[in-house]
Amino acid sequence: MANARNALPFFGARISLYPMTDDYVSVILGAIEGLPSTGLEVETDDVSTFLGGDRNAIWCALERVFARAARSGEHVVMTALISHGCPGETYCEPDPLTGSARATATHEGKGVPISAQWSLYPLGAGGYMDVIYGEIERTKRAGVFAGGAHFVSKLEGDACSVLDSIRAAFDDACGSVSHVVAHVTLSANSPTPKGRP
Amino acid sequence: MANARNALPFFGARISLYPMTDDYVSVILGAIEGLPSTGLEVETDDVSTFLGGDRNAIWCALERVFARAARSGEHVVMTALISHGCPGETYCEPDPLTGSARATATHEGKGVPISAQWSLYPLGAGGYMDVIYGEIERTKRAGVFAGGAHFVSKLEGDACSVLDSIRAAFDDACGSVSHVVAHVTLSANSPTPKGRP
Repeated sequence: MANARNALPFFGARISLYPMTDDYVSVILGAIEGLPSTGLEVETDDVSTFLGGDRNAIWCALERVFARAARSGEHVVMTALISHGCPGETYCEPDPLTGSARATATHEGKGVPISAQWSLYPLGAGGYMDVIYGEIERTKRAGVFAGGAHFVSKLEGDACSVLDSIRAAFDDACGSVSHVVAHVTLSANSPTPKGRP
Repeated sequence: MANARNALPFFGARISLYPMTDDYVSVILGAIEGLPSTGLEVETDDVSTFLGGDRNAIWCALERVFARAARSGEHVVMTALISHGCPGETYCEPDPLTGSARATATHEGKGVPISAQWSLYPLGAGGYMDVIYGEIERTKRAGVFAGGAHFVSKLEGDACSVLDSIRAAFDDACGSVSHVVAHVTLSANSPTPKGRP
């Protein structure tokens, strides 16, 4: 059993939430209050929080935490490092790619407008740029692509549609490359105009 | 000449600064005030700022901006995506790996204690995990390695020694892999104890 489990890809996310306010601690605590963590591995340090386990549960947690923080009205940013199949990791999710049936998909980010920037890294594969270009096209078809920039793609929409598109691209890349990482920055309520020169 | 320039690797950094205070705008403006940008390509949008050009100038800018923000005493975080040799990019630095002689190396981060987490992604190469492990060992020899965690290495020290170590590891990886990306999170003045369970 141990060997069988270890053959499955490891999945997890490392997140940080940055509310630009004196009350950042209460915004963070409000965002994570009541977070269902059943079955998730959670580790917090002074820089970030790691969530490991079922990917349905983890994607829902990302959307829930950021949507709640954004609804505070403060300028908030969340960064997430999402990783699938990292060699050497030994904890594995119950059901790769689809997650387990235990985690209900909820979408608390509907109607919360955000800006995002993200990068996709298919590792150890020679044709990785083709994978990246293909997944960028997927976000265009989904209607959330807002432009390319050095090293990142810009996405705009509500938190639900943006994260759904990133997840769809990420899952698809996992179908062709064994080790895939994405870095995502989500921003809400910024006073800076989009595309400021 | 155009072809010769295009054959050189592209280098740049995409950074965001997050001061957790109502006065975040003034902390950011204070951190970037007087930033020497001669010769750098600078693009700011509502999520991040891109710096392209000479790598000496860019690494110095990262250290300067974060050290000044940290000296405000507020809890501040800066994220940086650093990239070398991304295919498809057409702007190139004057002198790959070493930077140009025009950029003087300054270190405004001496004595500013920080926590950092970073990840290295050598792309398109089958032996990338060996490159990563080797560069982690380099940070251990430099005395800034503070532990491994899922997907990241933790570094501690002053802003100068931490960024110097990340740069040394990054430059060395560039010597063996044509496209290298690093993601770095720098944190100062956090109220959260290190290693909180």
